[in-house]
Amino acid sequence: MEYLEEQERRELWEKIQDALFNDQIDQFRAEFLEMHPYDQAKIFEEQTQDIRMQIYTYLSPEEMADVMEHIDLEETETYFTEMDPRFAAQVLSEISTDDAADILNELDKNQVASYLTIMDDEAASDIKELLYYEEKTAGSIMTTEFVVVHANQTVREAMLHLRKEAPDAETIYYIFVIDEDKHLVGVISLRDLIIAEDEWYISEVMSDRVVSVQVGEDQEEVARMMRDYNFLALPVTDFQNHLLGIITVDDVMDVMEEEASDDYSKLAGVSDMERPDEHAFQAAKKRLPWLVILLFLGTLTANLIGQFEHTLNEVAILAVFIPLIAGMAGNTGTQALAVAVRSIATGDNEKDGIFKLVLREAGTGLITGTTCGVLITGIVYVWKGDFFLGLLVGISIMAALIVATLAGALVPLIMHKLNVDPAVASGPFITTINDIISILIYFGMASTFLKLHLLIS
Amino acid sequence: MEYLEEQERRELWEKIQDALFNDQIDQFRAEFLEMHPYDQAKIFEEQTQDIRMQIYTYLSPEEMADVMEHIDLEETETYFTEMDPRFAAQVLSEISTDDAADILNELDKNQVASYLTIMDDEAASDIKELLYYEEKTAGSIMTTEFVVVHANQTVREAMLHLRKEAPDAETIYYIFVIDEDKHLVGVISLRDLIIAEDEWYISEVMSDRVVSVQVGEDQEEVARMMRDYNFLALPVTDFQNHLLGIITVDDVMDVMEEEASDDYSKLAGVSDMERPDEHAFQAAKKRLPWLVILLFLGTLTANLIGQFEHTLNEVAILAVFIPLIAGMAGNTGTQALAVAVRSIATGDNEKDGIFKLVLREAGTGLITGTTCGVLITGIVYVWKGDFFLGLLVGISIMAALIVATLAGALVPLIMHKLNVDPAVASGPFITTINDIISILIYFGMASTFLKLHLLIS
Repeated sequence: MEYLEEQERRELWEKIQDALFNDQIDQFRAEFLEMHPYDQAKIFEEQTQDIRMQIYTYLSPEEMADVMEHIDLEETETYFTEMDPRFAAQVLSEISTDDAADILNELDKNQVASYLTIMDDEAASDIKELLYYEEKTAGSIMTTEFVVVHANQTVREAMLHLRKEAPDAETIYYIFVIDEDKHLVGVISLRDLIIAEDEWYISEVMSDRVVSVQVGEDQEEVARMMRDYNFLALPVTDFQNHLLGIITVDDVMDVMEEEASDDYSKLAGVSDMERPDEHAFQAAKKRLPWLVILLFLGTLTANLIGQFEHTLNEVAILAVFIPLIAGMAGNTGTQALAVAVRSIATGDNEKDGIFKLVLREAGTGLITGTTCGVLITGIVYVWKGDFFLGLLVGISIMAALIVATLAGALVPLIMHKLNVDPAVASGPFITTINDIISILIYFGMASTFLKLHLLIS
Repeated sequence: MEYLEEQERRELWEKIQDALFNDQIDQFRAEFLEMHPYDQAKIFEEQTQDIRMQIYTYLSPEEMADVMEHIDLEETETYFTEMDPRFAAQVLSEISTDDAADILNELDKNQVASYLTIMDDEAASDIKELLYYEEKTAGSIMTTEFVVVHANQTVREAMLHLRKEAPDAETIYYIFVIDEDKHLVGVISLRDLIIAEDEWYISEVMSDRVVSVQVGEDQEEVARMMRDYNFLALPVTDFQNHLLGIITVDDVMDVMEEEASDDYSKLAGVSDMERPDEHAFQAAKKRLPWLVILLFLGTLTANLIGQFEHTLNEVAILAVFIPLIAGMAGNTGTQALAVAVRSIATGDNEKDGIFKLVLREAGTGLITGTTCGVLITGIVYVWKGDFFLGLLVGISIMAALIVATLAGALVPLIMHKLNVDPAVASGPFITTINDIISILIYFGMASTFLKLHLLIS
């Protein structure tokens, strides 16, 4: 079996839907359930409501749960709302608790309450527990379906317990060891367990160097740990080291994807990444807020240049270099911003103080600024034959690049230190700030030059 | 044990280094080896060459291999070059084959040849096999250390085999099943294996719906599959379905991180993301190539405005709105670019043809353009009391936004379809292109307006 391409999925569906239209439930089930749940979900998402309603009656709650676990979170509300509430509750109790809690977070409060009432008690109480935890923390992505063994059990007892628990657990490849008070005391991999002798005690074969996270830890930090340490599962504890749940690697991959997308959208100034199948109107709605803010910021820039209208009237050629200088400041600011945001995301910035970073970025700005400044002075001199004009543009670019580099790096870092969401310091915002600064520098210098009667053009 | 913060790592090291200075090898080993290899690697990287040379003599090749597996790939060359070649070869044969092959790809050819000669034959031939595969393909990230069982073995036989192979295999949680000709015929998870009865045949308990990738498949596609399907390991086959290796989830997390960083750098116009501990000079070296290219592109923009110098001389106020219009075009282009690049990265764009995308982006541009155009016409009218100037700026912004949105979305998509690396279509590049287009539109319209004697300012 190969990964299904869009095209193959569509062809497969064409075969399957005949069964659906002719009410051949057995044939539909045989062919639909043959696919991986991810592909089932992709096909399901493309159907009309009528067909979806029919599919609900053809699948068991457990089978539907597999499909729902692979549906984009934002889409799940539609489906659960149109299902029969009793069926919906059954589906929810079959979904792994962490994913079920995520889905319930998308639904409205009354709906959630009624599902939790219908659901069987054990599933409901597991999910309720997870609903407490704040979004984007370790608690919100952990699952409570894990296997624990006791330190004083033998390997044989542990294996028997494991065989019994395996079907319901999210993973059995790491087994966590607790003492009588449910404190986390160790971990053993299934790999080590199956090569251990039957009569050994767990306390002899487990590792007591178990890495755990606190339930309130940021999910990005959790993802970083699992990637750095190559874990498949990570235990989550409260402040007294009681084991509350585990986080598995598949959830962490979703977090990594989400956080990367997030940083990327911010740099581009798109509030929320769109899906390509959205309509132009929806796409515009997501991009417009940024554009309108930037339009108003842009009028500030225009206003600023307006202040120098008399300078412009005297030397119109000055206008020629406005986009060049503003553009270069914007570009270098975006570079510095990107480096700073990535270093915040990967945690690399922790080791150095802000002071060291200011020095480094000032140095980088000085080198890039001087290089570009000298180059453009030469270019303008050759092109326009006016050395003073070249010098003006060159010095402006140099100054603008130094300031813009510093601004690009420092704004997000300072925001991060102040615990302000650096979303405000997104790409276009920094670019606009740098536009304004660079124009101020350029026209400030031009006015000074003019007063000194140096510009003869 | 908690994840070590930079600060804690440093404090721990201060304790350990005393042992090193006093040549207390046992104490050093006890404390150093207590840490997770990731932390060992982070501490190791911060040492001077003298201390590193001492550490090599204190650790076994196997222990050093654990450290090296957690070192950034670009740094490994320094360390292997300074090690005694015999020790280096031993370390390499203890590293898992896929990581060892990655490291050898960083070293120079002669060095590689001499290591492979010293190394034991089995490890050397495993690694040689992997060195063949092209970078960024499934072959380059797979490992050849995996466990296979035969379809006609019993569960008991398979478990015995597994216990023997477990210590060397990269993962034992998915066991792949082959026939006599080494064709991949099935997969069984360790979870299913341990709950199966001892005397059952593997062919009865395995799943024959096994998803595999071809050895030449792009690593980004592999990462997508593992994330979508929630796999912990994925088999790699040749075109005749022979099992060649497996890819494990930890390698895929590194790929995801790498690809996300890559997209991000391109949007920001940084050729290669820097590390915050680099010096200003190194950082400048990475950013300058882009800045110089953009400087030259910027002179094109300047040249273009120069063509309209007589228009500017007549109506100097036109200059006031240049950065606003160019900036808005740049911003909207970057938004469209980001959405397009993400949809290429996630494979979402496959379903729709280019034609549908053109329509959608044109629509988005029309809506955002009209909104911003109307807004700015009003603003300029109120501010300058000149309706025709407002109309000129408004229509220019509208036209610029439509064209810039289309350019931002289409350039990377067309490059992707033509199999050209879309790196060239990075953020600053698109922004500069859009600067030029928007200025052309603005001054083109201004000249026309002037000819019609509409601008009275």
